[in-house]
Amino acid sequence: MRIPIDRQSKTPITQQLANWLKESIRAGSLPRGMKLPATRALALELGISRITVQNAYALLESDGLIITREGSGTFVDPPQSIRHAPDQPVSKSWPFWQLAGEHEINPMMPVNVTHASEKLISFTGVGDPDQFPLRDFLHTLQDVIRRDGIEALSYGQFGAGYEPLRLTISRVLASQGIQTHPDQVLITSGSQQALSLVCQQLLREGDVVLVECPTYNLAIELFRRLKLKIIDVPVDENGLQVELIEPLLQVHTPRLFYTIPNFQNPTGACMSVARRKQLLALAAKYNIPILEDDFAGDLRYDGHSLPAIKALDMNGQVIYIGTFSKMLMPGMRVGYLVADGPIFNQLVKLKFVQDLTTSPLIQRALDDFVTVGRYQAHLRRTTRLYRQRRDALVSSLQSHLPQTTFFIPRGGLFLWLTLPDGVSASELLPLAIQQGVEFAPGTRFFANPEDGEHFIRLNFATNTLEDIETGILRLKSTLQII
Amino acid sequence: MRIPIDRQSKTPITQQLANWLKESIRAGSLPRGMKLPATRALALELGISRITVQNAYALLESDGLIITREGSGTFVDPPQSIRHAPDQPVSKSWPFWQLAGEHEINPMMPVNVTHASEKLISFTGVGDPDQFPLRDFLHTLQDVIRRDGIEALSYGQFGAGYEPLRLTISRVLASQGIQTHPDQVLITSGSQQALSLVCQQLLREGDVVLVECPTYNLAIELFRRLKLKIIDVPVDENGLQVELIEPLLQVHTPRLFYTIPNFQNPTGACMSVARRKQLLALAAKYNIPILEDDFAGDLRYDGHSLPAIKALDMNGQVIYIGTFSKMLMPGMRVGYLVADGPIFNQLVKLKFVQDLTTSPLIQRALDDFVTVGRYQAHLRRTTRLYRQRRDALVSSLQSHLPQTTFFIPRGGLFLWLTLPDGVSASELLPLAIQQGVEFAPGTRFFANPEDGEHFIRLNFATNTLEDIETGILRLKSTLQII
Repeated sequence: MRIPIDRQSKTPITQQLANWLKESIRAGSLPRGMKLPATRALALELGISRITVQNAYALLESDGLIITREGSGTFVDPPQSIRHAPDQPVSKSWPFWQLAGEHEINPMMPVNVTHASEKLISFTGVGDPDQFPLRDFLHTLQDVIRRDGIEALSYGQFGAGYEPLRLTISRVLASQGIQTHPDQVLITSGSQQALSLVCQQLLREGDVVLVECPTYNLAIELFRRLKLKIIDVPVDENGLQVELIEPLLQVHTPRLFYTIPNFQNPTGACMSVARRKQLLALAAKYNIPILEDDFAGDLRYDGHSLPAIKALDMNGQVIYIGTFSKMLMPGMRVGYLVADGPIFNQLVKLKFVQDLTTSPLIQRALDDFVTVGRYQAHLRRTTRLYRQRRDALVSSLQSHLPQTTFFIPRGGLFLWLTLPDGVSASELLPLAIQQGVEFAPGTRFFANPEDGEHFIRLNFATNTLEDIETGILRLKSTLQII
Repeated sequence: MRIPIDRQSKTPITQQLANWLKESIRAGSLPRGMKLPATRALALELGISRITVQNAYALLESDGLIITREGSGTFVDPPQSIRHAPDQPVSKSWPFWQLAGEHEINPMMPVNVTHASEKLISFTGVGDPDQFPLRDFLHTLQDVIRRDGIEALSYGQFGAGYEPLRLTISRVLASQGIQTHPDQVLITSGSQQALSLVCQQLLREGDVVLVECPTYNLAIELFRRLKLKIIDVPVDENGLQVELIEPLLQVHTPRLFYTIPNFQNPTGACMSVARRKQLLALAAKYNIPILEDDFAGDLRYDGHSLPAIKALDMNGQVIYIGTFSKMLMPGMRVGYLVADGPIFNQLVKLKFVQDLTTSPLIQRALDDFVTVGRYQAHLRRTTRLYRQRRDALVSSLQSHLPQTTFFIPRGGLFLWLTLPDGVSASELLPLAIQQGVEFAPGTRFFANPEDGEHFIRLNFATNTLEDIETGILRLKSTLQII
């Protein structure tokens, strides 16, 4: 125990030691039952006499905070009634440098809602965790540790990530019509890190980023945190209204286009091929990189598949972000980006100084677990299931909430609902939770949150058909009492 | 397969499809044996006629790139002789924005040395992987997945990390004499992320950071990448020469002190208590935060233990960084920081927008695996082992390399060797590797790499006693031929 002892202090060392131990026991950081070091060992370690330690222990014992059991040692043993110190230290006079960032806008971090009842039906989240083959994944982890031994927990290869996994990703992408090379694939700690790296590499405080309106809430949080200026362009059923962009470029000079072309979060819109090509042409004409976030592009339920913007890009204009979170589990924390050109190595280096590498164990397990065949089989299964759920949601909404409007998303996870006039999403949410149904209020998805008051986002992928019907009936009741 | 098809193009769709598939097969992203979609399914998906797909497949089959097996489907089957496309696309005219960052200094990323012989003895790395109880850890992973189920792979709690792990860390720290509260502990993706978050939160491009000279190479890389101005102050056997700092503060205005007070990387120096207190006093007087990197503070082999600077800090002046990498395995990618005051929540939010959360599975497994008792037992064992290895290295150096100088580190992993006059570390390294011994050249640890040419860093923790002796004999031979 590297307990601070002040030899210059007027407080005797015995007392200093006893005070430190008392405080730690009171605060709970030395918990009941923890064995204290032997007096001889602690004396040696701190360079003080053994008597001093013995006296300090005796003080604590007489206060009833520790107990010595003959032959086994000294243990922390405070009375049951001890009140642990308050959770937060009381307000102090912090150093000035601590106060500099105090007035930042707080990100809207997701709150872990305390469910009013066991049966809360939540139209939030990402994919359906029940679809994840947990036992198979555990076996994969076992296999990897048995096969690779300690290598699986070493730093592994620095650089762009575990090479076999990068090859696997390039093959999964090829099976999706996106031609790439493993050398252009960078493994990241989730797609959020990919997004963060690209922004940090390309943008500085005050730079303009052009985004869809509405767009992914955690991208908005990131842009705010980086103090970027957000210019947003509306989305319709065919995605970002690209034709509105060029006039804006006379006024603003964006340093990045951020887009989710497929089954956009939150609207579910899918950008038309014509608009994809226009966006790419604008990017080339005005020298603006495109960041394509393809979080669910493979989950299509009807209509023809459309090429990724990256697949149309011939000269490194597009950086593509993908994730396994939707196929696998978000807690994997493995995503990736695909980039061509000099920017790729710059992103690799930035990743390296920020966290060296993404968990080598999880990278290896994923590589073992994800094969093109398994990926396609998973895709067929989830596509079938989520299509049914989307249809169920659409039909429940048409039956029970005719006063709302929406278009039918052709893939992905989300349906974007326009509320009846006069109903505000943030007022609706707490009432809905009381009725046992939850959703994501539209306010989260706008740079200016108030603009989202008329909308809610419903995730149709996570609930059974029965729960979808029940959930929408509860939403109906909530709208009746508001 | 979301293959890009251009309906406006003069190239027939059959040819477009065939070209895309050919290119993917040539590049290896559609690998041998991969099953192609059935013609009906692909036609439906792309919104083209089935005949078109059949014709494209026929073209590929006549080129000998795919094969159709009756009743089972169509498979990629290129001739063995096919030359895959070169690893990197040929030089292109990249968009202008791609060229902006081209002239950055490349970080000195560790190279995966191709060992000349099987028996290369490497005095690099961190702890000894053979000390890690891999099988126990695998059982812990199994237990966690069985106990927590899908929860272990969900996003889990956002915020500062998995709560039970934060409590465990505060208890391990208490057993180390560092009093803290779980609410002040933020889990990070390795200690590198902790370092990166603190710098991003507190510093901007051009700001001055004051560091030890020499210091941790990956901290230097990070500071360079963030375009910070590095002011360095020499280290002696008693650590950072704090008395040299105040005159510097008349000229520079550092926004951060970065220090490794215990068994410093790379010198092995341990900062005296008097200097710790002086540094804290300077930090308070000049309103400068201290970032204390305690990567191996618990690995002490002789002398009395000294309090962490954080343990002396009464008002939130110090941010403390710790890691399990040295006790466990670096590939865990779990570190933590401890901070008090308003800065703590700012760091939590920054972590959130950068990668949401560190692998919940690994956090849970670590919490299960690390108990105060196990930690202390591990510490006793490794301390005993590494002390022997340090002693062996010291004795080999004294016997075989009397022309070098060093002081004996009292803990940690590293010994810092001054080479004989006229010998340069970067010239020595390739010759040494030829002789079968490797080390970290001093150049890596200086803001100005040339200043490190007279030094090498030897990690004594990773090799057996025999290998230490053999390695130093090899170094001796290398010095004789240089």
